[in-house]
Amino acid sequence: MNRTELIRQIREKQSYLCVGLDTDFEKIPDHLKSADDPVFEFNKQIIDATHAFCVAYKPNIAFYEAMGPKGWISLQKTLDYIPKNCFTIADAKRGDIGNTSTLYARAFFKEMNFDAITVAPYMGEDSVKPFLQFAGKWVILLAHTSNSGSADFQLMESSSSHRKLYEEVILKAQTWASSGQLMFVVGATQAEKFKEIRALAPDYFFLVPGIGAQGGDLEKVSQYGLTNECGLLVNASRSIIYASSGNNFAKAAKAEARKVAEEMKLYLNKFS
Amino acid sequence: MNRTELIRQIREKQSYLCVGLDTDFEKIPDHLKSADDPVFEFNKQIIDATHAFCVAYKPNIAFYEAMGPKGWISLQKTLDYIPKNCFTIADAKRGDIGNTSTLYARAFFKEMNFDAITVAPYMGEDSVKPFLQFAGKWVILLAHTSNSGSADFQLMESSSSHRKLYEEVILKAQTWASSGQLMFVVGATQAEKFKEIRALAPDYFFLVPGIGAQGGDLEKVSQYGLTNECGLLVNASRSIIYASSGNNFAKAAKAEARKVAEEMKLYLNKFS
Repeated sequence: MNRTELIRQIREKQSYLCVGLDTDFEKIPDHLKSADDPVFEFNKQIIDATHAFCVAYKPNIAFYEAMGPKGWISLQKTLDYIPKNCFTIADAKRGDIGNTSTLYARAFFKEMNFDAITVAPYMGEDSVKPFLQFAGKWVILLAHTSNSGSADFQLMESSSSHRKLYEEVILKAQTWASSGQLMFVVGATQAEKFKEIRALAPDYFFLVPGIGAQGGDLEKVSQYGLTNECGLLVNASRSIIYASSGNNFAKAAKAEARKVAEEMKLYLNKFS
Repeated sequence: MNRTELIRQIREKQSYLCVGLDTDFEKIPDHLKSADDPVFEFNKQIIDATHAFCVAYKPNIAFYEAMGPKGWISLQKTLDYIPKNCFTIADAKRGDIGNTSTLYARAFFKEMNFDAITVAPYMGEDSVKPFLQFAGKWVILLAHTSNSGSADFQLMESSSSHRKLYEEVILKAQTWASSGQLMFVVGATQAEKFKEIRALAPDYFFLVPGIGAQGGDLEKVSQYGLTNECGLLVNASRSIIYASSGNNFAKAAKAEARKVAEEMKLYLNKFS
C-alpha cells in the first residue's frame, strides 16, 4: 500500500489505529484451543471484529516464530485474511549485512507480501538498503523505542553533533529513503518528546507502540505527533486482543478498538 | 555448552573456527537439488566434512526463514545433526521488548536447542536480559560489525565518555552478564582495532565474522584478539561451504576448513 492510499484509508476510517497481533496460544480463549489452527482462528475473529476501526495490523513475528513451522503457516493465513484496505506490518526488527537483509526482505515482502517491516538500525545503511529495493514496500526503522532499555544506547549524545543516537538515526535515514518508503518507530512512552521528534522528520510517518498495556498517552502523542497528513500509526496490542479472555473476546476487542478509534477521530479534528 | 567445555574443545581440536551455514538453495550443487530436503542434505555433507576442523556451527537464520515453513524444518534437522561436541549459534540478530525477547529466547534455546544466539543491542538491557535467563545458554551481542554500514552509528562518539557506541555496548553489557554467558560480535574487517577492543573485554569471547569472502585478516585478528583461553571464535561461511559448486563440494569444504584450522593451530601456539 502506498502513502496516498494509506492516508486515504486514515481519512475514510477517521482512525490511525494499528492492531498488534501478538497472539500467544496460552492466552487464546479455551473454546478456540481445539480448532484446527487456534492462532489463525483467534486472529480471524479479531480481524473481523476490528477492521472497521483500524487502518493497519502488525503481527509480532516472535509470537509466530516461537511456535515453529506451524507458526509460519498461521502467520501466512492471517496475512492473507487481512482485508486489502488495511496496511500490514511485520514486526520483525531485522537488520543484518546486505546479502542477509536481502533474504529477509524477500521473505517478508515477496513470499509473505507484507507492506512493511520493522528494521533495527545498529548495522547502518547497507543493512537497511536491501529492504528499500522493493517497490511499494516500507521500512519502519527503530528510532526511540518504548521500553525501559531504550535509555541505554538510544539516548547517547554525539560529541560532534550533540544529538542523541535516535536523533542521528532519524536524520541519517532520511538521506536513504523518502517519506513514501520509510517510517520511524517512536514509543508513546516518550510523549513529552514528540514535539521535538516530529520537528526532525516533519513528513515521515511514525509507528507508535506503547499505548494501552505499556501506559503511553494517546492524547499527548496525537497533539505533538499529528501532521496535516496524519503522520501517525498508533499501535495497541494486548489492550485490544486480550480485552477479554472469555468467549466474548472478539466483542470485547471490537469495543476497545472502537473506543480508541473514537478518541482518534477527536484528535484528528482537533490537532491535524 | 559451557565455557569450560568450549575451551576444552578448542584445545583438543587446536581450532577456533566456526563454520557459517549460510545455505542458499540457489547455490547448492545441482545433483543435490532433487533430494527430499536439499538444504539439509547439503548441510549434512558439509558437517560430515568439516566437524573435525571446527568447534562451532552458525546457521544464518535468514537463509532458512526465506524458505518459509520448510526452511525451519531443514534448520531443525541440521541442528539435530551437528555433533554434540560442537557449539551452535543461531545467527538471528534478534532484540525486542522484554516479553517478545522471551519468546525468541524460548524458540531458539528451548524449541531448537541452540547454545547461543546473536542479539542486536539497540533496544538496551531489557531486550537482552530475557536471553540470559536460560542456564547454559549464551548471548552474542553485536558490537562492531564487519559491514560497511557499521560506521554509520557504531562509531558515534559519546559526548560524556568520549567512547564510541560499540565501546559503550561492550562495557555496559559486561554489567549484565559474565564471560560464561556473553560474547561479542567484532568484525575481522576491523583487525587493526582488535588490540583496543580486547582491552575493553579481556575475558570475553569474540565471535569474529569477516574473514574469507569479506576479506578480514586472520593473522592480525589472532595476534591481537587471542587470550590465554583463546577467547575467539572466527567464522567463515561462503569461503568454506561454497569452496566448490560441483559434486566435490564437501571435499573442497573439508580442504578449506582444514587449511584455516592449520593456520589457527599456528596462531594458538604463537599468540595464545
